[in-house]
Amino acid sequence: MPKRVDHEQRRQLIADAVRRIAADRGLEAVSLGEVAAEAGISKGLVQHYFPSRDDMLRYATRTLRDRVGDRLRTAQAELPGLRAALIALLPLDDESRTEALVANAFVVRALKDPEIAERFRLGHAQLRDAISAMITAAQADGDLHADLDPIREADLLLALVAGLGDAVLLGHRTSAEVISLVDHHLSRLMP
Amino acid sequence: MPKRVDHEQRRQLIADAVRRIAADRGLEAVSLGEVAAEAGISKGLVQHYFPSRDDMLRYATRTLRDRVGDRLRTAQAELPGLRAALIALLPLDDESRTEALVANAFVVRALKDPEIAERFRLGHAQLRDAISAMITAAQADGDLHADLDPIREADLLLALVAGLGDAVLLGHRTSAEVISLVDHHLSRLMP
Repeated sequence: MPKRVDHEQRRQLIADAVRRIAADRGLEAVSLGEVAAEAGISKGLVQHYFPSRDDMLRYATRTLRDRVGDRLRTAQAELPGLRAALIALLPLDDESRTEALVANAFVVRALKDPEIAERFRLGHAQLRDAISAMITAAQADGDLHADLDPIREADLLLALVAGLGDAVLLGHRTSAEVISLVDHHLSRLMP
Repeated sequence: MPKRVDHEQRRQLIADAVRRIAADRGLEAVSLGEVAAEAGISKGLVQHYFPSRDDMLRYATRTLRDRVGDRLRTAQAELPGLRAALIALLPLDDESRTEALVANAFVVRALKDPEIAERFRLGHAQLRDAISAMITAAQADGDLHADLDPIREADLLLALVAGLGDAVLLGHRTSAEVISLVDHHLSRLMP
């Protein structure tokens, strides 16, 4: 089905443009004209794929979850374990920084748009499952205290990396400082 | 100076309207017409006080820090201590929820606007000082481990409440759940 693949590629091209603009200048800068210019296609073509701006914004959030999942899997393949996963969730390189900014830009909208809210909710639930499974595995290996509740610790760790991520994005803390803070927190969970 | 007070009140009225719109629909909804309608004044009057939209947005972030400071002081007057301060930083009522959404809506802009970035930076530094002073006081009272580094623990706690705040805003966790997570974290810092 070559035509279908082409359509999907075009949608992705447009969604990538939306994300770049949102990360750079916020959702307020996402207009038909700006998206067409950023994607290097005509306004008409953007409208062909996304009849409304809302359609375009919803689609742009669709792959965010997959990207975070991919980054976690890549990090795990390189260096398995909880610490590497947590660091992979911090916005320490251009790609993760863009994703964090995009996720941030969509928060107010997520509160009003049930489709985007559901995507955020699913993404959070998947992350929580992945992190709590890593905690359970580390407990089995004797690397973390056996009496920790994996779900509760996963909730704390995810909140921590989210908050540290904001601190890095805003320049309140350096990459080295937030990694050191993650290590400090993890050290308290170790036997 | 009655005239001066009046001008400052008008600016505040406009800034409040900006914040309500930003919290409700994001910065993208903040236009001259929307702000005038929300504030119940004419577009001309808005323009008289804020010649550009950027001026208006900058001014709207000016009092955010004072509001968080006021809420912390009120919380401390009602129930002194670190725990009450941390809970006061969570978006658990309408006012703190609006502030959290506004702060969130301004993150991408803070990265581009040095004036807003400086305001965020100062707000964060003041919070960090306040929380680390509370940790030091709790250590002196024997309520927290004497060997904790107050600055490092303040950084962790502020990241934690920021991340838990997002989780509450997005409906991933309930108010009771995030308070219980704060307590769980604090319990590890106690002798």
